[in-house]
Amino acid sequence: MPHINLQPGLFGITSVLDFRPESAAPLCELTQMLLRGESTLTEAEREMIAAHVSSLNECTFCSSAHTAATCLLPGGKESGIQPMQADLQSLQVSAKMKSLLQIAEKVQRSGRSVTQEDIDHARANGATDREIHDTVLIAALFCLYNRYVDGLATLTPADPEFYQTLGKRITTRGYKMPEDGYHATDYKTH
Amino acid sequence: MPHINLQPGLFGITSVLDFRPESAAPLCELTQMLLRGESTLTEAEREMIAAHVSSLNECTFCSSAHTAATCLLPGGKESGIQPMQADLQSLQVSAKMKSLLQIAEKVQRSGRSVTQEDIDHARANGATDREIHDTVLIAALFCLYNRYVDGLATLTPADPEFYQTLGKRITTRGYKMPEDGYHATDYKTH
Repeated sequence: MPHINLQPGLFGITSVLDFRPESAAPLCELTQMLLRGESTLTEAEREMIAAHVSSLNECTFCSSAHTAATCLLPGGKESGIQPMQADLQSLQVSAKMKSLLQIAEKVQRSGRSVTQEDIDHARANGATDREIHDTVLIAALFCLYNRYVDGLATLTPADPEFYQTLGKRITTRGYKMPEDGYHATDYKTH
Repeated sequence: MPHINLQPGLFGITSVLDFRPESAAPLCELTQMLLRGESTLTEAEREMIAAHVSSLNECTFCSSAHTAATCLLPGGKESGIQPMQADLQSLQVSAKMKSLLQIAEKVQRSGRSVTQEDIDHARANGATDREIHDTVLIAALFCLYNRYVDGLATLTPADPEFYQTLGKRITTRGYKMPEDGYHATDYKTH
């Protein structure tokens, strides 16, 4: 049971965004900009950072949703990423992407654990200042989301089909806040 | 030295907000709403949650800035909070506030560590759903900020006077993004 009174039929992040639309609006705007805005990282690559950090934070809802989104986007499925996968070594991604995921992994632990060597390694693999900045901020944003979702004990559906539906929603309409609010019927799998 | 190329003369969070104004805008809006918007928690109480989480994340910049802000706001100084103070026990705050700070402390570790007992304890001390929600989201937001600030190795001034000046700025003009951008001269202590 969630720790606060949330709209029945809503799950995970959706239920807490619905609880307070004033905080949902800037959060959705920030997420849309970072994960869908102009970038030299593909949408699948940015979703993968979100999925990886969520897996390390053991947030089943966010890990499942962003792994589904990664796999639905061009180039994502080929990475072989799985929900709640903590280990990067088996991923089929570019050397640049692997070095950025390693920075995200450090950020998940603590901002203070990112070293000059991590940055040099990413740069040697072609990462730019903007890509390093965005990787750190996306990783930090999911450290926020994972705590928001689990800190209020929101509901985590067990059905993998739920995350396929949610993944389709966020890869087609993005993260923009729905103008008419959040409704349970929009997140139904059947 | 910061991990990416930031405007000289800017420090901590200001330097990374300046790096990418598109992400700064929604972040500033969210922070202004949570820490300065309508709430049954005082501004000092909300700054104290920010300061406490930043201390636990060992983020000297954010801990110093939000401790200074707490102490400049009505009722803040009497709490006895100090920069980088990890222990709550000596704080002179209400039982409700102590129980909310305990929830923030759990969120800092992991959203999953918040227990039903933590929530029951806060409710028994008079905390409402909105206060519990906002405590979790403020704590999560500072888990983002601390990682953003330290993950990019932004500069942390050693002079306590710097944080007094910054504290005065955020307790008088708030967190709204400056319309004309970030300028080193606005953050000078002399």
